[in-house]
Amino acid sequence: MKALVYHGPGKRSWEEKPKPAIKDATDAIVRIEKTTICGTDLHIMKGDVPTVTDGRILGHEGVGVVEEVGSAVSSFKKGDRVLISCITSCGKCEACKKGMYSHCSNGGGWILGHLIDGTQAEYVRTPFADNSLYLVPKGVDEDALVMLSDILPTGFECGVLNGAVKPGDTVAIIGAGPVGLAALLTAQFYSPAELIMVDLDANRLEVAKQFGATKLVNSGDGKAVEKVMALTGGKGVDVAIEAVGIPATFDTCQDIVAAGGHIANIGVHGKAVSLKLEKLWAHNITITTRLVDTVTTPMLLKNVVSGRLSPRKLITHEFKLDDVMKAYDTFGNAAKERALKVIIRKA
Amino acid sequence: MKALVYHGPGKRSWEEKPKPAIKDATDAIVRIEKTTICGTDLHIMKGDVPTVTDGRILGHEGVGVVEEVGSAVSSFKKGDRVLISCITSCGKCEACKKGMYSHCSNGGGWILGHLIDGTQAEYVRTPFADNSLYLVPKGVDEDALVMLSDILPTGFECGVLNGAVKPGDTVAIIGAGPVGLAALLTAQFYSPAELIMVDLDANRLEVAKQFGATKLVNSGDGKAVEKVMALTGGKGVDVAIEAVGIPATFDTCQDIVAAGGHIANIGVHGKAVSLKLEKLWAHNITITTRLVDTVTTPMLLKNVVSGRLSPRKLITHEFKLDDVMKAYDTFGNAAKERALKVIIRKA
Repeated sequence: MKALVYHGPGKRSWEEKPKPAIKDATDAIVRIEKTTICGTDLHIMKGDVPTVTDGRILGHEGVGVVEEVGSAVSSFKKGDRVLISCITSCGKCEACKKGMYSHCSNGGGWILGHLIDGTQAEYVRTPFADNSLYLVPKGVDEDALVMLSDILPTGFECGVLNGAVKPGDTVAIIGAGPVGLAALLTAQFYSPAELIMVDLDANRLEVAKQFGATKLVNSGDGKAVEKVMALTGGKGVDVAIEAVGIPATFDTCQDIVAAGGHIANIGVHGKAVSLKLEKLWAHNITITTRLVDTVTTPMLLKNVVSGRLSPRKLITHEFKLDDVMKAYDTFGNAAKERALKVIIRKA
Repeated sequence: MKALVYHGPGKRSWEEKPKPAIKDATDAIVRIEKTTICGTDLHIMKGDVPTVTDGRILGHEGVGVVEEVGSAVSSFKKGDRVLISCITSCGKCEACKKGMYSHCSNGGGWILGHLIDGTQAEYVRTPFADNSLYLVPKGVDEDALVMLSDILPTGFECGVLNGAVKPGDTVAIIGAGPVGLAALLTAQFYSPAELIMVDLDANRLEVAKQFGATKLVNSGDGKAVEKVMALTGGKGVDVAIEAVGIPATFDTCQDIVAAGGHIANIGVHGKAVSLKLEKLWAHNITITTRLVDTVTTPMLLKNVVSGRLSPRKLITHEFKLDDVMKAYDTFGNAAKERALKVIIRKA
């Protein structure tokens, strides 16, 4: 089969690889119908994720058709159309029983396109299929569904749920990339009073406005804090969602969070940040971190089916799987290409 | 009247001051029967709290008798025996209506012995008396009750409640001072499986054992992290309560918290700390900070009355109010004097 293979920092190729086979009784083999590229894949390409080794097929998002299942798989059969979760989980260990699938202690967690071969290929082996795949409801927009493999549950669980967004809240989301926009879309489940979107890209802020942001702050002048404080009458925000992953944006969150407020970190951070405890110790705040657990995937699916949630609008570019190398070029120049998410379909 | 007065870093005196009078209709004047000294008072004496100015009467804890009330006070009358909360609150502003009394926006919060004169005196003026005093139940141990002005609700709200301690949890408390010990006593409301106490003072660890700690870790050798990890089979703790207030102890909490765990900060920090987001971003943790709100004072009072909670055991030394200068000397040498809390009674 053909697959997108990582060969060390900056090196990838679309090449022939052996078609995966069942290894464990809980595995399924899925024929990929649709996949996409994640910001994390770009991090991997830069060499930022040293646990990804030369020869790895990338990708942890997708929709496909079950080709074959192991003898212990009871919820899926050949021919089923399935959504592949970015998180693989046994469902049986202590972490899984708490709903913390991201820390599955039986070899699950984020492994696809990381520790085992991923979804940017014609076929993928998905371990613990019963707990890590979701049946695609009939008639649902499958392109949109690919957004539920990772970014929608990530924005929702790490940003909105961990931030404890509630009716009447003033929420600021720092970073209007795909995950920040996913937080923006799903924060609206809870009817916050204000949704302030902060980014330095005017195009992405315009998109955020169309997606429901009530206030826009262009941080290009380095004055995001002053602007958010002015918008909130000097009080700050109830919830600050960090969707970038650098010290400067985490700092912004610390400076704009109101007493009693929440900082919900989504960003993948490469270094430590300075936590201003000399001020914050008495500020009654909560800071959360989370690798998405994808425990809300079934709920998000219902909202896509009902039409309350429309993740399709995150898709700006389309490619065939054979053109995945071009898709990387486009996604890697997201600002210039005005790209949010790309959808990559079977040829 | 006589009062303990701050005159700048390192300078205090027991001197004559005017007896306070009602200023606002919501005030009460309370004759002090019992008071104590807080670690925060020592911080003030070092000059660490610049908002405390020369001439201020210190103290924010005490039990007394109402001498006089303003015209708007409806819950208390002359002669009532009352517990004075370290937090003053109007009960009417947005913060108070959320139960965040510490951030009362009508001039409340921690003001006693800070922004207005405090309780280490023969009399004190207590603003917003209806919401900031508690009637002393008949027959209750009033010495013990003084521990409910500050340290018990602080240990409980900032440590135990914010840390979300629950049955079966493994909890580590870093710092076996009075507030850490208050967290230790009140954590037991929730039946954690293990209560690991970490301190570098062997005497305080011994006290912690008597108070219910199941494991003791002496951090004097700089190996607290290794020891806690060994005690938890390498998993770390569900809840790490920081009850010291320096970067090193906050670091310990970051290094011992398990995936999905809580770091509940109680410590008063004078400087920023390094938050290891490069590791913790994916660790599904929650960090909380809080200035005590004293919203749980009525609940704690019930547990003292019923005998479930015995804060008296925190009291190691007794003084007369006239000897408050000596009490400071003793409390200021807590390790050498083996002092936890001192009780200071009316002469």
